[in-house]
Amino acid sequence: MRYFPDPDKNLDLGAVNRVVEAAFADHGKGLVQMPPKIYVTLPAGDFRTMPGFLPTLGIAGVKIVNVHPDNPKMGLPTVMALTIILDIATGKPAAILNATRLTDLRTGAAGAIAAKYLAPKKECVLGVIGTGRQAEAQVRATAQEISLTGIRVWNRNSVHASAFAARLSPLSAESVSLEQACDCDVLVTTTPSRVPLIKSEWIHPGTHINAIGADAPGKEELDPEILHRARVFVDDPAQAFHSGEINVPISTGNYQPWMIAGTLGEVVIGKKKRENPDEITIFDSTGLAIQDLAIASLAMRQAPGMELPFL
Amino acid sequence: MRYFPDPDKNLDLGAVNRVVEAAFADHGKGLVQMPPKIYVTLPAGDFRTMPGFLPTLGIAGVKIVNVHPDNPKMGLPTVMALTIILDIATGKPAAILNATRLTDLRTGAAGAIAAKYLAPKKECVLGVIGTGRQAEAQVRATAQEISLTGIRVWNRNSVHASAFAARLSPLSAESVSLEQACDCDVLVTTTPSRVPLIKSEWIHPGTHINAIGADAPGKEELDPEILHRARVFVDDPAQAFHSGEINVPISTGNYQPWMIAGTLGEVVIGKKKRENPDEITIFDSTGLAIQDLAIASLAMRQAPGMELPFL
Repeated sequence: MRYFPDPDKNLDLGAVNRVVEAAFADHGKGLVQMPPKIYVTLPAGDFRTMPGFLPTLGIAGVKIVNVHPDNPKMGLPTVMALTIILDIATGKPAAILNATRLTDLRTGAAGAIAAKYLAPKKECVLGVIGTGRQAEAQVRATAQEISLTGIRVWNRNSVHASAFAARLSPLSAESVSLEQACDCDVLVTTTPSRVPLIKSEWIHPGTHINAIGADAPGKEELDPEILHRARVFVDDPAQAFHSGEINVPISTGNYQPWMIAGTLGEVVIGKKKRENPDEITIFDSTGLAIQDLAIASLAMRQAPGMELPFL
Repeated sequence: MRYFPDPDKNLDLGAVNRVVEAAFADHGKGLVQMPPKIYVTLPAGDFRTMPGFLPTLGIAGVKIVNVHPDNPKMGLPTVMALTIILDIATGKPAAILNATRLTDLRTGAAGAIAAKYLAPKKECVLGVIGTGRQAEAQVRATAQEISLTGIRVWNRNSVHASAFAARLSPLSAESVSLEQACDCDVLVTTTPSRVPLIKSEWIHPGTHINAIGADAPGKEELDPEILHRARVFVDDPAQAFHSGEINVPISTGNYQPWMIAGTLGEVVIGKKKRENPDEITIFDSTGLAIQDLAIASLAMRQAPGMELPFL
């Protein structure tokens, strides 16, 4: 059994996108096993358990990931994760990966793949709401898939927004107002908001939105009116209904599960697509175990690991 | 983050029984969080993911355990396991335990606790069906809780049965026929059978049965007629309906979920009990995440571990 403390070391973002895209293709073809993630509530946060099996990549295992919003006050990340990989033939534990940064990267890759297939054009202005670790992962992964002609960044705290824009200045990023950030071709929302931040009137026809922030019951970033103007693709229906961007509107009756247009997997295999350049499309990301298994399969091939006794 | 390669080293079986008993008491009081275990099917077996949180013991985490029946041909155990423990305050991964032998011990402890509360008398003859690792764990744990005046062992392979009896000869174990093994006060069934082995006419009034073997859909060891003569206690209703001794009779309509008498947790806290010495009682064990967390909390306090880098 090997332990990988730094499995993101030397990972190529383009290669990550490819392996995550392949996982979504398998999901679209119905080839994967992936029960919906399970939530356990702790006093100051929660943890989620995400088992899965990706036969095409020959990898099976479980990601375990927490969300503790007050951790930064104690100098710890909000989100930390481990992925456990089992040998498929025997079920023996094969590897344990520190999956904290892998989680950022695999979520970024999902947004990048959604943008690749659903963006209205080849050259895009990117709007970014929120400037945390996930915002940066989304920008860097998406820049691998589509040509970005500008990046408009908003954070409630303008100092954070400016620092983020400065860090991404080689990609022409600038700090703007919330409304200005929504004036873009591809909008990425990455906040932990529980009240919709994005007004419908700010979203013009043709925009593709990667709704990343909502990943637990009660979270939402978009005015539900936008959902009714858009075609909504989800990563996994069961998870999206429970904890994705559409979870609150579904719970209040303002959106119905049958209204979704399909899954990202179906988009990747060509079964579903953007129908015209004026359509608003949304990718509602909750994060799938198969993304974690895909990136683990890549990381295990190239990262340094240490052998641990088992048996 | 610490890794414990041999966490069962130096574990006192009596202490294991106490901590597992405490976990069942918390379960009986409704204090624990424990979603039903999740199954993922692999080509030659399966693996199960078991998250949980035991607030009283202050421990949260996930056990991951496989079942691969052909593993012994390759020199590997059928069942191997890891338990991942998270820090409750921050969600940070705190420990990883090799849980293969801990799984044997915590399952043995559950049977022992059931026998402590449900055995018809203080001094008992123990019948043991099957002679694998779990059979031995059941006998050793149960011997801590009730006084055993004899042990009647049966295995389809009489060589295995004799070897098992010889190993446990200090406890007066002898190899007998299947019917003779059932002539006892406490019967423990530990086979992976998918056809009932135990006939109703062999079970006399007053017997307590620990039905341990059935832990997946399709498995059963007891003639369903015995269920109808008995009061059936389960570890967890949802898991028992899905994969315990009662799963096949429930799926065929020969037993109904409402017929169960209660949970072992309710027995431990005194809410339910054996009503008279002639009653047949059954404990249907599927194995709970809280048993794994309880034994992990004990093992982490006394086993040697190694520090692994994380973050």
